[in-house]
Formats: sequence, structure tokens, C-alpha cells
Amino acid sequence: MPGIIKERLFTPGPTPLLMEAQARTLTAANVHHRTEAFRKIMSETLSLLKYYYDTPNDVLIFASSGTGAMEGSVSNLLSPGERMLVGTAGKFGERWFGIAEAYGIEAVKVESPYGRPVNIEAMKQKLASEGPYRAVFIQATETSTAVMNDVRALGEAVKNYPETALVVDGITGLGTSDLRVNEWGLDILIGGSQKAVMIPPGLAFVSVSEKAWGLIAKSRLPHFYFDFSKERKNQAKGETAYTPATTLVIGLHAALEYIRKIGRENLIANAALLAEAARAAAQALGLKLFAESSPANAATAVCAPAGMDSGAIVKELRTRFGAVIANGQGSMKGQIFRLAHLGYYDMPDLFAFFAALEVSLLKLGHKVELGSSVRAAQDVYLRHAG
Amino acid sequence: MPGIIKERLFTPGPTPLLMEAQARTLTAANVHHRTEAFRKIMSETLSLLKYYYDTPNDVLIFASSGTGAMEGSVSNLLSPGERMLVGTAGKFGERWFGIAEAYGIEAVKVESPYGRPVNIEAMKQKLASEGPYRAVFIQATETSTAVMNDVRALGEAVKNYPETALVVDGITGLGTSDLRVNEWGLDILIGGSQKAVMIPPGLAFVSVSEKAWGLIAKSRLPHFYFDFSKERKNQAKGETAYTPATTLVIGLHAALEYIRKIGRENLIANAALLAEAARAAAQALGLKLFAESSPANAATAVCAPAGMDSGAIVKELRTRFGAVIANGQGSMKGQIFRLAHLGYYDMPDLFAFFAALEVSLLKLGHKVELGSSVRAAQDVYLRHAG
Repeated sequence: MPGIIKERLFTPGPTPLLMEAQARTLTAANVHHRTEAFRKIMSETLSLLKYYYDTPNDVLIFASSGTGAMEGSVSNLLSPGERMLVGTAGKFGERWFGIAEAYGIEAVKVESPYGRPVNIEAMKQKLASEGPYRAVFIQATETSTAVMNDVRALGEAVKNYPETALVVDGITGLGTSDLRVNEWGLDILIGGSQKAVMIPPGLAFVSVSEKAWGLIAKSRLPHFYFDFSKERKNQAKGETAYTPATTLVIGLHAALEYIRKIGRENLIANAALLAEAARAAAQALGLKLFAESSPANAATAVCAPAGMDSGAIVKELRTRFGAVIANGQGSMKGQIFRLAHLGYYDMPDLFAFFAALEVSLLKLGHKVELGSSVRAAQDVYLRHAG
Repeated sequence: MPGIIKERLFTPGPTPLLMEAQARTLTAANVHHRTEAFRKIMSETLSLLKYYYDTPNDVLIFASSGTGAMEGSVSNLLSPGERMLVGTAGKFGERWFGIAEAYGIEAVKVESPYGRPVNIEAMKQKLASEGPYRAVFIQATETSTAVMNDVRALGEAVKNYPETALVVDGITGLGTSDLRVNEWGLDILIGGSQKAVMIPPGLAFVSVSEKAWGLIAKSRLPHFYFDFSKERKNQAKGETAYTPATTLVIGLHAALEYIRKIGRENLIANAALLAEAARAAAQALGLKLFAESSPANAATAVCAPAGMDSGAIVKELRTRFGAVIANGQGSMKGQIFRLAHLGYYDMPDLFAFFAALEVSLLKLGHKVELGSSVRAAQDVYLRHAG
């Protein structure tokens, strides 16, 4: 049907942009990075990132996607001949192995099937009986399956190994779940700009603990661009070793000010509320959730009805209503779709999405009671709202 | 509840902005209006306005709100001692009398109660028996009551009086309803920028027929800024007599390109679909529509439930969900609320609005079957959609 169809991102990154932050970047096109003005912005942004991370640890910014920071975490911590332990339960967990292979590092795997969280007990056993490992790697939230891992339990375990760092990919976990960097011992925590911080892709963040800095000092794997120690020295002065992505940093500054205004804990509570409402809404339509337990707050993975390709749902939502969701990745493609609610999303976004999903499923031949999933989401809102 | 609440305009002006058009204005801050570059933009914009108006008549742009063009229509057409005939059924119709009074012009009134359309038969009788009138004034859509007037019937009648011009306030009617400028004899048709053309306030438009130009040539009321003849000469060259609102013109150019791309008729069909869905949704909640007949496509006026102040609904929607709707004006304040769907609105906007309205009404003590109004809107969509 012709007419107005607005594009609305419901993908787990990129996420809807905070327009105030975008507007700020537009007036900053002439900022040069080797100036006092930019050093001030950079320093303030790093302080705001510490608020966002809720940690006094160093936090560094790289002009790269999150994967760059994942690679840097390996190449800054390990040395030839050392081993790493990886807990994986999805496509992003699998990425650690590609990095390890590129650097000739042996990566020991603890793997759960897609849709389940990583088995932390199994990781603890490996740590105790098959060590030493220089570092342990895990996703806070595995975005490909929309499952949350028990990072706290893993952190408590890794704390007992003074020569082992815990590296957490918090790219979609940050700003959507409670991650206590210092209390839980998250030595390196990785974030990305196109997620809950509501700005476009192009920046990665890492927080680095004192324990991690000690291990980094001993590492002998090659790295140049992703040199955490070099950036630590530069960023302490509001500088960067190489050219920073100035407009993204300025946008990040504005977005983090917004997050500080609404409160980091409320950003997380917002994602948790939307996630609970999304699960209730999907189930009201008779759809099965892909995560059997420990669902993520960042996104919800929903199984397509039997006999229906999830790609058809993705397409129908896009062409009819401009709503963009993510298909499954790898072997999950066609089986599931993923609806995000991390960052700049609110309840009316979710109401609109599920009303559109109902119509789309109906058009694809699924039996739908119109309005029923919206009602389920409203009920969740009413249970939590004042 | 803390968290993310996005502000969403559901007001009948300003309306949601087309961000592509806004982005275009940002890069144009350095354009000077007395240049070939701006003359080209201005000329193209005037051509696009003719497409939007669907007329070969002259169309002029003024840096003013729509009221300026309403005043100009009086001051360019009439002379001292001449009379005007006004059809009114709401707050915007009443504005003509303030203008007439300011210029010492006798304005004869044909008035319908709020919520009804103007009685065109009564206007025809006045034309036939109590003339002559130099001009006849009416709203295509009376925004204060969300009622559409039968401009076509009035146009057919006024055509019979060669010394009488028909002036139509199409500020919210343009882009939301079928207005056939030449076929129906709409001698002056007024538009505004913050309506269906999706840009901010600050511009008014007028189309002027050959018949109107003939009468304008004889007019002797004072005017200087709103001088239609002077602007006709200037704008034919892509210029303006006084400084134009350059960034708004550039935004208008971009927005009209978008409208040409989706099709003017589809912009109107979009508003008509949303209006039909809005009426069905409101009625599904047991709410009474304020317009007893001839509801507008631009906005829907809904009566508050008995014993409830519509201002409470406005406030609840705003604080809970960031949804901004309009209260009633004048004596309608507290009695009705007005939900707009002109310009850059789509079905998911409406789904989100009604889900939020349901929750808000429930919180205010109205009995609501959650999801029911969303379902009614979905049903309307499904009846029309392929």
C-alpha cells in the first residue's frame, strides 16, 4: 500500500539514534582533534564513560567496531604459548576463536547449544583442573541468541586466579544489564557505540582493571593500533595515539550526558521492562521464545511459527510497516527473528511493533487474535508502572 | 516511572518533522537569498508547491504563519465599504472576523455549532439574496473541531459570481483532503508549513487564481508585507520582496520532493486511512467522536468520557508516554482532545498512540478492554491493505 512508511530500527545494533546527540555532531564538523577544545571533550567523555560503566577503572575509546576491542583484548593480554578459555553459546562467542587462531593462541572451549547460557560451572572446572589460562572470555549478552550469561559467577571464580584476566564482551550487555565491573572482577569490559549509547557505529570502549594492566605489561603478542598501554597514556591527557573519530566522540559525549540525566540504572530498567513486555507479547501470540532461560534485556529472540520462515516475517514487517528486525544468524537463520530493545526505545515503540507484527503474521497465515500481544505488553507495563 | 520517554507529536500542527528535510536545512546555513543558487531553490520550490496544490495557478510563499496569509487574503481582495461572507463552525473560522474588524470590513456570518460542518446551503442563500460580497471565506478543514467542510459545493456556487472570490483556508486541509483548486474554483487556497508538508512553522502559502488576480487589481485595502501582486512579480524570478526564511524554504523543497516521490494522492490517502482507523479505535473504547458528520482527515476530535476532563488525558499521555495531543480550544477545552494524523504519520504511530491511550484512560479510571482500540485500527488497516 502506498503512503507513508517510516523506517524504524528494531535491530540489536544499530539502534535508534538519539537526535539531540546527532544534532551536536553536526555543529562540530570543524573541530580539530589536536586542540584544547577537543581534549576537553575527550576527557569529559571518558569521565562520562566511567559513569556509564560504573567503575573507577580506566576506560579507553577506540575508533573501531567492537570486534577491534575484542581483538585488542586478546593481543594485549596474551603471549605466545599461553592459553585462553572461552565460554560460548552463539555467533559472537565463536568470534573469540577466530581471533585466537589469527594470533596462534590455543583457545579452550566451553560450549552450550544456541539458546542456552554458557555453563559457568564447566568453566570453573576447566579453570581449576586444566589451567593455567592467561585470560577467560565471555559475552555478557550473546546477541545472536538473546541470552544473558552469568558473568557475576564467572567473575567470582576468576578472581581466585591472580594470573588470569576476565574479558567480558559487554557490547550489548552494557546499559541493558547490571554489570558490576569492580565488585564482580570484570577485568576488561568491552562496549560499542551503536548499542545502548544510542549513537552510530564506529567506536569501541574498553575498561581495564589494575589486574589486567599488570598482565598487559607482561604480554608479548603483537599489536599496534589496539595498544591499550599507549592509549592509556594518551587518553589520560585527552588525546589519542591515532586520529580519533571526532564527531562520534562528540555524539557520545552528548548521549552519555542524556544517559546521566535519566540515570544509568533507569536505562537498564527500561531495557528490562521492554524485554519482559516483549516476551509476554510474543508468548501471547503463541510464539516460542528461543532463549529457554536467562533471556537478555537487550533483545528478544522469537521462534517463527512452525512451517514459517522467519525471513518472511522480517520482510513483511519491513515492507508493510518499515519495521526492521534481525533474522537469525548462521544455522538460526530462517528459524528465529530478533527484536531489540536496547538504548533509545520506549513502550510506545514496543506497542507499535507488536501491533505491526500481529498484522504481519496474520497476512502470512498465522492465526492471530488482533490486539492480544499489545494487551500482554500493556499488562506488563501496568504491573511495573506507578 | 523513570526511563526513556520519547516525545511524539500527535498535534494538528506542529507535526512530526521529516528528518531528511531537516538535515537538508542544516547544510544550508550559509545560503544568501540574493544569489542565483537561492533563486534556483526558490523557483523549484514554487514548482513543487504547484504539484502539491495540484494547480497551474500562481503559488506564493510568505515568511509568516498561516494567519498572515489569511490576513493578506482579506487585505488584497477587499476595498473599504465592501462586504465579505464567512462560513464558520469553529475557532479558526472565527479568526476571519478579527481580521475583518481590523480592516473595518463588514463580515456576514453563516455559523454552525462546533462539531458540525458549515451550512453551505445557507451560504448559497446569502450569496443569492444578500449580496454582493467581494469574497467568501471558509476553512477546508476546521482544525478546532476536526470537521471537513464541503468546499466543492461552495466553490461551484461562488463560480456564478464573477465579482466574488472564494478564499479557502487549507492550512490543515492541504495534503489531507482532495482539494481541486481549478475544477472547484478555489480562488485563493492558503497553506502552512507546519502541517502536512512536515516542516517547522514559519511559512505560509497562497495559490491565486486568474479571477482572484483580477479582483486583487481593484482592491484598495492597505497592505505592505502581504502584497500578493508585488510577490507575484518577485517570485516569478525566484526572488522575494523581503528577506525569505531561507532554511525553511530549503526544508520545504526537500519535503515536497519527498511528497512528490510518494505521490500527493498517497499522502492524502494516508491521512484518510489513519483518520478512519482513529475513529474506529476511539469508538472501540466507547468514546464519542466530536464531529457528528464530515470528520476531517487531518485530525480526530474525541470527547472525553463523562465526568473526565480531557486535560487529564492530555497530561497522562504526555507524562507516561511522551505523546503530545491537543486539548479542545475555547469552550471545547476540557471536553475533547484532538489527535492529529496529517503529514508524517504512519500506522505504527497510530497503533502506539492508541495502546498508550488505553493505558492512560485505564489509569484515569475509565473502563478499558486493553488492546481493543488497537485491534479496531488494525481491522481498518486490513480492510484497506493489500
